[in-house]
Amino acid sequence: MGIEIGELAARLGGREIEGDAAFVVEDVAGLEGGGPRDLGFLRSASHASALAESSLGAVIAPEGVDVGGRPVIRSPLPNLDFARATGWLRPAVRPPAGIHPSAVVAGDAKVDPSAAVGALAVVESGATIGAETVLGARVVVGAGTTVGRSCWLHAGALVREGCVLGDRVILQPGAAIGGDGFGYEFNERGEHEKVPQVGNVVLEDDVEVGANSTVDRARLGTTRIGRGTKIDNLVMVGHNVRIGEHGILISQTGVAGTSTLGDRVILMAQSGVGGHIEIGDGSFIGARGGVIEDLPPGSRVWGFPSIPERAWHRSMSVFAKLPEIVRRLRALEKRARTDEDGS
Amino acid sequence: MGIEIGELAARLGGREIEGDAAFVVEDVAGLEGGGPRDLGFLRSASHASALAESSLGAVIAPEGVDVGGRPVIRSPLPNLDFARATGWLRPAVRPPAGIHPSAVVAGDAKVDPSAAVGALAVVESGATIGAETVLGARVVVGAGTTVGRSCWLHAGALVREGCVLGDRVILQPGAAIGGDGFGYEFNERGEHEKVPQVGNVVLEDDVEVGANSTVDRARLGTTRIGRGTKIDNLVMVGHNVRIGEHGILISQTGVAGTSTLGDRVILMAQSGVGGHIEIGDGSFIGARGGVIEDLPPGSRVWGFPSIPERAWHRSMSVFAKLPEIVRRLRALEKRARTDEDGS
Amino acid sequence: MGIEIGELAARLGGREIEGDAAFVVEDVAGLEGGGPRDLGFLRSASHASALAESSLGAVIAPEGVDVGGRPVIRSPLPNLDFARATGWLRPAVRPPAGIHPSAVVAGDAKVDPSAAVGALAVVESGATIGAETVLGARVVVGAGTTVGRSCWLHAGALVREGCVLGDRVILQPGAAIGGDGFGYEFNERGEHEKVPQVGNVVLEDDVEVGANSTVDRARLGTTRIGRGTKIDNLVMVGHNVRIGEHGILISQTGVAGTSTLGDRVILMAQSGVGGHIEIGDGSFIGARGGVIEDLPPGSRVWGFPSIPERAWHRSMSVFAKLPEIVRRLRALEKRARTDEDGS
Repeated sequence: MGIEIGELAARLGGREIEGDAAFVVEDVAGLEGGGPRDLGFLRSASHASALAESSLGAVIAPEGVDVGGRPVIRSPLPNLDFARATGWLRPAVRPPAGIHPSAVVAGDAKVDPSAAVGALAVVESGATIGAETVLGARVVVGAGTTVGRSCWLHAGALVREGCVLGDRVILQPGAAIGGDGFGYEFNERGEHEKVPQVGNVVLEDDVEVGANSTVDRARLGTTRIGRGTKIDNLVMVGHNVRIGEHGILISQTGVAGTSTLGDRVILMAQSGVGGHIEIGDGSFIGARGGVIEDLPPGSRVWGFPSIPERAWHRSMSVFAKLPEIVRRLRALEKRARTDEDGS
Repeated sequence: MGIEIGELAARLGGREIEGDAAFVVEDVAGLEGGGPRDLGFLRSASHASALAESSLGAVIAPEGVDVGGRPVIRSPLPNLDFARATGWLRPAVRPPAGIHPSAVVAGDAKVDPSAAVGALAVVESGATIGAETVLGARVVVGAGTTVGRSCWLHAGALVREGCVLGDRVILQPGAAIGGDGFGYEFNERGEHEKVPQVGNVVLEDDVEVGANSTVDRARLGTTRIGRGTKIDNLVMVGHNVRIGEHGILISQTGVAGTSTLGDRVILMAQSGVGGHIEIGDGSFIGARGGVIEDLPPGSRVWGFPSIPERAWHRSMSVFAKLPEIVRRLRALEKRARTDEDGS
Repeated sequence: MGIEIGELAARLGGREIEGDAAFVVEDVAGLEGGGPRDLGFLRSASHASALAESSLGAVIAPEGVDVGGRPVIRSPLPNLDFARATGWLRPAVRPPAGIHPSAVVAGDAKVDPSAAVGALAVVESGATIGAETVLGARVVVGAGTTVGRSCWLHAGALVREGCVLGDRVILQPGAAIGGDGFGYEFNERGEHEKVPQVGNVVLEDDVEVGANSTVDRARLGTTRIGRGTKIDNLVMVGHNVRIGEHGILISQTGVAGTSTLGDRVILMAQSGVGGHIEIGDGSFIGARGGVIEDLPPGSRVWGFPSIPERAWHRSMSVFAKLPEIVRRLRALEKRARTDEDGS
């Protein structure tokens, strides 16, 4: 129980310590609510006064920031180091390897012996579950779907047939991967006839998909989420979308069918991308932004339809003054009429 | 089967009756479609003409409203009284106490003998299920999670490990409580490295969470939903959010991480609150409102970024006239140029 | 394996063929990535150059479009015909009829012998499952709910008690049908008291509901989705809503309680309809549109609050110029003051 901060500093790549390297921390905590055996962290000197009020036993902090004499690990990346220390002090409890007796695993599915298949999980025919992977309670892995190594599919997540998950993929509860894309054609009776969605979904290595988010399978080919992209809760990714590497899709965002996002694209909360749109690498879509035209790399846009960030901020600042603008316009018009009458 | 309206009036705290107190109603119904043994209600006199067309046998109505001679329970709170009468005439069918043989309950979980654990539900190690609580089919209660008394977790709801639900908490189908918060730090390779989310979620007494809504666990500490707060479907509550008592979050709303809402805050449909925001008690956010600055108690705002209600309504009324404003401006400019030429 | 294109043309109602009618196609593919045994399609002549680059073996294409000498099925409806050909070349793999041994089916439920009930599915007391219907893994059908013929409820979909699904209804993963409507009344303590939601949901024939979408049960009576209406992912339909036939609700749209949509209404992505609204047949709500007033049939609106399409487009085009408008107004005001001083 507990780790010496000297040991933590070593694991963090040899950070310097001030104070007692043998000081043992037992848990992590924020500035509020931390106790004398807890490790906390400071992002910057601006939080030093809050630390003075805190009972934290030790901290990770940038060079030179006053920590009130506590044992401290000095770090140029205190947020990252604290995240890693959290992982060591509060490691996720992995279920033991093996298949829970209540799980239903098809005879021809391949489950690595080091994987853990939870209570009432279902692994369908021809599916493959990689080494060290955890399937939580009642997870479903569809027929022929491949799940890589060291993945964690939390309780209630599901992946339909024929999909591919890379290594270290995380699905939060209720994430639904591989549902049919939304595709219909009008038939001779003027009714919507379903277009079979026979493609799949590929989630590359290190992708995470949030709770109750959905990624639809392609009509033909593949809906692909690139390596390291992180998707928050209640996000919708349509069929045949391609998202590059290391992207961020914040909660309640939607990307409509056949759109392509480059690498490191950020979609802020409740934003949206229309169908058949291309967004260049490194673009940033502000909260509630709605993109309906292609964007070159490095774009920063807000609003719906989205416009460049500065233009949107300027227009929004005028928006609240619209009634005043109308009054001023009316005053000018009145004056013009007076001039006319008087001339 | 059926209840005399005299009995209903007594249960409602002794409401007055006009007409036959022994009249038996067997069901509840709206003004349309009700039959002669159904009980309906009138909110106010403005619906009296609709009642005249109706076949309802009896009603709950405010004092003095004409009910066409039907037996009537007079009430200052007809909506509330009708809701309660609905509960008595159409009581929810509770499954019998006990654990369904197909459920998977860990040996060290504590399930009150009066609780009902449904088919294929999972109660993990160290979890506690309180008296009279119902877990529907395939509900998952994670390791060490505590569910209070008289809760109802409908089919498919799930709560991850280490969370706490108070008494009379209701989860609708697919509600996902305790997924990881969305937290990453850039690492040395410029990639998003997951920040362990080691906190939990507390849903206090009488909280309800709608279908497929998600409440994320805290990074550290607790994401807390206060007593009596009601959350609609497809709502997202981020990590470390604190929501006060008796709030209302309408469908498809999102609250980003570490924001704090006071008591009795109302978020209308499809609204949103940015991260690290404080919203004072009794505030009201209109539909689609997006709050990105702190709000004092009693605020009423609309729009994104949100502005005071009156200002928003005024600006929106101008919005549709923007093309006309441009025309008027152009006319003034033309006139100014003419003046110049002519002067 | 594979089908002769002559056979496909015949099944498509006798389409004309150019080239070898005995040419066998084995799969379907898009213009990119198709191989010599794949069937593709062209919507119009504008894609003919892309086809020239493609390795597709055969195509479905409109009359007169150059297909580079490939065997071709000529069609006035190439999209629709290709969709149907997809269904024949890549038929959905139906699980075998019967009840999986791990499923939990109540003794008094009626499951047609031709239906397939998947692993760990639950069919509660009094429910009925029609002929040829497929329930995927861990689907839940609540007590007394009726599911028609040839439906497909994908893994993890669920329907609560007392609901009715017509024939050929499709539920994608995680769709939640029949959760309680969001209804409360203030009680004497000023707290939200739950209004029992004792109605149900009816999904008529040929309705499809997307992944993790929710349709709430009525307070009294029925929430009804009309025949042929298609609902995308993460859509919210509130209690007592009535949606007509052949409608389209794109992803992340919400319809609040007691609203009525006519036939063939289209709600584009992330739009919303307030409570107690009526929208006439054939109306179109643009992406992000928010309707808070009744709309006559054939309306086309955008914006929130929604306004007619042309007015919205005009106003939006002015929006980005608001700062310029303020500058022009200021110039006129300055000039007016100068005139005054000078006169």
